[in-house]
Amino acid sequence: MANVKATIPKGTRDFNPTQMGRRNYIFDTIKKVFKKYGYQEIQTPTMENLDTLTGKYGDEGDQLIFKILNSGDYLAKLGTNLTELKSQNLTPKISEKALRYDLTVPFARYVVQHQNEITLPFKRYQIQPVWRADRPQRGRYREFYQCDADVVGTDSLLNEAEFICIYDEVLTHLGLQDFTIKINNRKILTGIAEILGKPDLIIDLTVAIDKLDKIGFDGVTTELLNKGFSANDIDKLEPIILLNGNNETKLENLKAILNSSAAGLQGIEEIYTILNYLTSFELQNAKAELDLSLARGLNYYTGCIFEVKTNQATMGSIGGGGRYDNLTGMFGLHGLTGVGISFGADRIYDVLEELNLFPANAEQSTQILICALGKAEEIYGLSILNLLRKQNIATELYPFGAKIKKQMQYANDKQIAYTLIIGSQEMETGKFTLKNMETGEQQQLTIDEVLSKI
Amino acid sequence: MANVKATIPKGTRDFNPTQMGRRNYIFDTIKKVFKKYGYQEIQTPTMENLDTLTGKYGDEGDQLIFKILNSGDYLAKLGTNLTELKSQNLTPKISEKALRYDLTVPFARYVVQHQNEITLPFKRYQIQPVWRADRPQRGRYREFYQCDADVVGTDSLLNEAEFICIYDEVLTHLGLQDFTIKINNRKILTGIAEILGKPDLIIDLTVAIDKLDKIGFDGVTTELLNKGFSANDIDKLEPIILLNGNNETKLENLKAILNSSAAGLQGIEEIYTILNYLTSFELQNAKAELDLSLARGLNYYTGCIFEVKTNQATMGSIGGGGRYDNLTGMFGLHGLTGVGISFGADRIYDVLEELNLFPANAEQSTQILICALGKAEEIYGLSILNLLRKQNIATELYPFGAKIKKQMQYANDKQIAYTLIIGSQEMETGKFTLKNMETGEQQQLTIDEVLSKI
Repeated sequence: MANVKATIPKGTRDFNPTQMGRRNYIFDTIKKVFKKYGYQEIQTPTMENLDTLTGKYGDEGDQLIFKILNSGDYLAKLGTNLTELKSQNLTPKISEKALRYDLTVPFARYVVQHQNEITLPFKRYQIQPVWRADRPQRGRYREFYQCDADVVGTDSLLNEAEFICIYDEVLTHLGLQDFTIKINNRKILTGIAEILGKPDLIIDLTVAIDKLDKIGFDGVTTELLNKGFSANDIDKLEPIILLNGNNETKLENLKAILNSSAAGLQGIEEIYTILNYLTSFELQNAKAELDLSLARGLNYYTGCIFEVKTNQATMGSIGGGGRYDNLTGMFGLHGLTGVGISFGADRIYDVLEELNLFPANAEQSTQILICALGKAEEIYGLSILNLLRKQNIATELYPFGAKIKKQMQYANDKQIAYTLIIGSQEMETGKFTLKNMETGEQQQLTIDEVLSKI
Repeated sequence: MANVKATIPKGTRDFNPTQMGRRNYIFDTIKKVFKKYGYQEIQTPTMENLDTLTGKYGDEGDQLIFKILNSGDYLAKLGTNLTELKSQNLTPKISEKALRYDLTVPFARYVVQHQNEITLPFKRYQIQPVWRADRPQRGRYREFYQCDADVVGTDSLLNEAEFICIYDEVLTHLGLQDFTIKINNRKILTGIAEILGKPDLIIDLTVAIDKLDKIGFDGVTTELLNKGFSANDIDKLEPIILLNGNNETKLENLKAILNSSAAGLQGIEEIYTILNYLTSFELQNAKAELDLSLARGLNYYTGCIFEVKTNQATMGSIGGGGRYDNLTGMFGLHGLTGVGISFGADRIYDVLEELNLFPANAEQSTQILICALGKAEEIYGLSILNLLRKQNIATELYPFGAKIKKQMQYANDKQIAYTLIIGSQEMETGKFTLKNMETGEQQQLTIDEVLSKI
C-alpha cells in the first residue's frame, strides 16, 4: 500500500485533549443552562435529503452545501449523455443527500416529521457540527459546531426575555464580565420601510442595514440607492437607525417617528414587554440594548432579533437569534411560531483563550501517575492502582521498562497532578514519595495518607 | 417554495429527548471510565481526504464509504468526455473527500500528523459518529456512534489487562451482571496455521474462523477447503478451535499442540501474562475467557484480540478490539505498536432497553413547572422562577394564556417532577400547591418549604 500523507481537508480541524477539555467546558456550561430553562436535547442526522436543504439559504447558501455522491454505480442509473451536462444539472442526478448546513432547518424538519409525538411548546436544544463549503480563513471553518436552543408553539415574549437571561447566565459563568445583548424587532424595520413609503423593499432594507458594521453608513447608503431608495429616504433613515440614548429614550423617539405604522408600533410594544419581563429577573453582567441598526440577514425572522457582542475582545457577534412565525411552513406545517438563539462556540473559545479565562482543570487529566522502578514494583503498584481507581481517582501506572526521567516527562506533558514513586525501599516501608508536579513538593506518605490528601 | 416532505435518509435517525438522555447516560458512563484509566478525548473531522480512507477496509469496505462531491463546477475542472466513464473511475475525479468510516484510521492519521506534539504512550478516546453506505436493516444504521479507546507506543500487556477492566467497569456500571470478555491472540492463530503447514494462508484462516458464529463449523470447513486447506487440516483444526475447559486447561492443551511454533507459544505466553495481570485487579461481573475460535475480521490485528458478549440478551458482540503492530505504517510511521477497544453503543442501548436497565432520571427533565392562573400570577410567578433557578433548580413557567389542564398535560408529557400552582389565593397567603406529578400527592407549602423539599 502506497504511503498516504497524513493531512486533513482544508477548513477542518483535529482537536487535541487540551482543546477538547476546553471545548467540552464551553458545551457543558451551555447545556447546563439550557436544561435549567427547560430545554431538552435532540440530535438529527448528519445527512439530510438534499431537497430538505436546498432553497432554504438563498442561492449563495445552496452553493455552500456539501453534497454526498450516491452510492453504487450512479452513472449507470443515470443513462444520459453527460458531455452536454453542467455540474449544477448533474448534481441532483448523482446526489440525493447532503451534510446539514445549520441546525435550524433540520429542527423545522424534525418538528414537522414528529408533530404527533411532541408536546407544544416544544423546547429543544441541539449542539452538533454543521458544514459549509465556504472559503476557509482565520476563524472560519468548513466544519464547526452550532449550539442552538429553540422553542416553537408559543408566542409569549417571556421566551425572548428568558433567552436574554440564558445569554447572561452562560457568558457570566464562562467568566465574561462585559457583554451586550443587542435587541431589535423586524416589525420596527417593517415600520421604517413603511414610513419611507417603500414597504416592498423591506428585504433590501434589512440586507443593507445588516452590513452596517462591515461597510459603514456610506456603504449602506450606496447599496440602498442602488436598490431603489432615494436620497430623501436615506436622510430620513440615518437619524433613526443611528438613534442614541438609553432604551427608554430610543423607544420614546421611535414611537413618535413610527406612529403611523401599526407594525412599527407593535414592534416597539414587544420590546417594551421584553424589557419589562427582564425587570423580574436580575441580569448579572449582560446589558440589553435596543439597537435599531441590528437587522440579521436571515429572512425567516419576523419578530424580535438578538445579537451578542463582548466588549472585552475584538470579535464579531458570539451569538444571535430571533423569532420566526412560519419556519415549519417550508415543510407544510403552517401557523407555528417559534424563537431561538445560537451560541458561536468557536468564537467564544477564541475569546476565552485570549482573555485567559479557561479554568486550569478544564482538561481533567489523570490525577496520579504511579511510577514503578522495577518489575516487582510494577506488580506491587498494581494493587495501589486498583485501590486508587476504586476510589474513583483517575490513576495510571506507567508500563514497566522506562527510566524514571521518561515517566516524569510523561506526567509533565500530560499535566498529571501527582506522581507516586515505588522503589524497593517504598515497598518495604509502605511509605511512598508523592510529588506534586506543579509545585515540585514531595512528601513521604502511606497510601491512606495519600487518599486523604487527594 | 414547494413543500418538501419532512423525512430523513434511510438508515439515519433522529433522537428525541428521551433517547438523547439515555444515549448520553451510556456515553457519559464510558467517558468517565476511560478518563479514570488515563485516556483523554480527541476529535477528528467528519470529512477525511478520500485517499486517507480508501484501501484500508478492503474492496467491500471501500464501496461503503460515503464520498463528498467536490464543490463548484466540478465537471468544468474535469475537461474529459464523460460518456465512456464508469462511476468508479469518475468518483476520484469529482470527489476528494469522504465521511469517516471508523475511528481507527483517523486515529492512525492523527498520530502520524501530530507525532511531534504527542507524548508516548498516547492514550486517547474518541466518541463520534461514523458512516457506512451499508444496506440498512434492524440494528444496522448508516450513521452510528463508535466509542473507541486506544493506546499507542507501548507493548506492555498491562494495557490489554486494563482494557478488560474497562469493559468490566463500564458494563457493570450500566447494570449488566453477566457478560464474557472473549480473548484470543493472532499469534496463536498464526501458530495453528504453522502446525497445519499452511502459514501463508493465515488470513484465509482467520477470515473463515471469524464466521464460525454465523455459518457454523460446517460452513467454515467448506470455506477453508475452497481456500486450499485439506480435509486432514480440518481434522486437526476442529479440536483446537473447539477446545473446552477453563482457561488453564485450554492453555495447557494448546501449549502441547503448538509446541513447534514459536509464534504460537508467544501468543500463549501473552495470554498467561494478561490473565496474571488480572489477578491484581478484581473483575466485578466480567468473565475473561480464552476463545480459540475468536478471530476478528480486521487484518491489522497482530496480537491479543477481544470480543464482548452479554449472556443476558440475544445480541451480537457489544464490544471488541485488539493489538496492532503497524497501524500507523499506512501513513509512513513504522514501528509503533498499539492496542484498542470499542464499545458498540447502539447495541448496548438496545440491551439496556430490553432489560429495562436505564435509570429513571437518565433524561434529566425540568424539575418544577410553575403554573400561573392569570396575568398577575404570571408576574408573581416570575420572581419564584428567578429564585428557583438561582438555586440551580431546572424550572419553567408555562407561558400565560393556557388552561391549567393543558399545563398539567405539558408537565406530564415532559415528565416534569413537580408542578407549582399560583392563583390569587396563593399570592395572598404565600402558600403554593406543590404537586408531585408521579404520585399525585399535593402539599401547601411556602417557597422556603418548597426549596427544602426539592
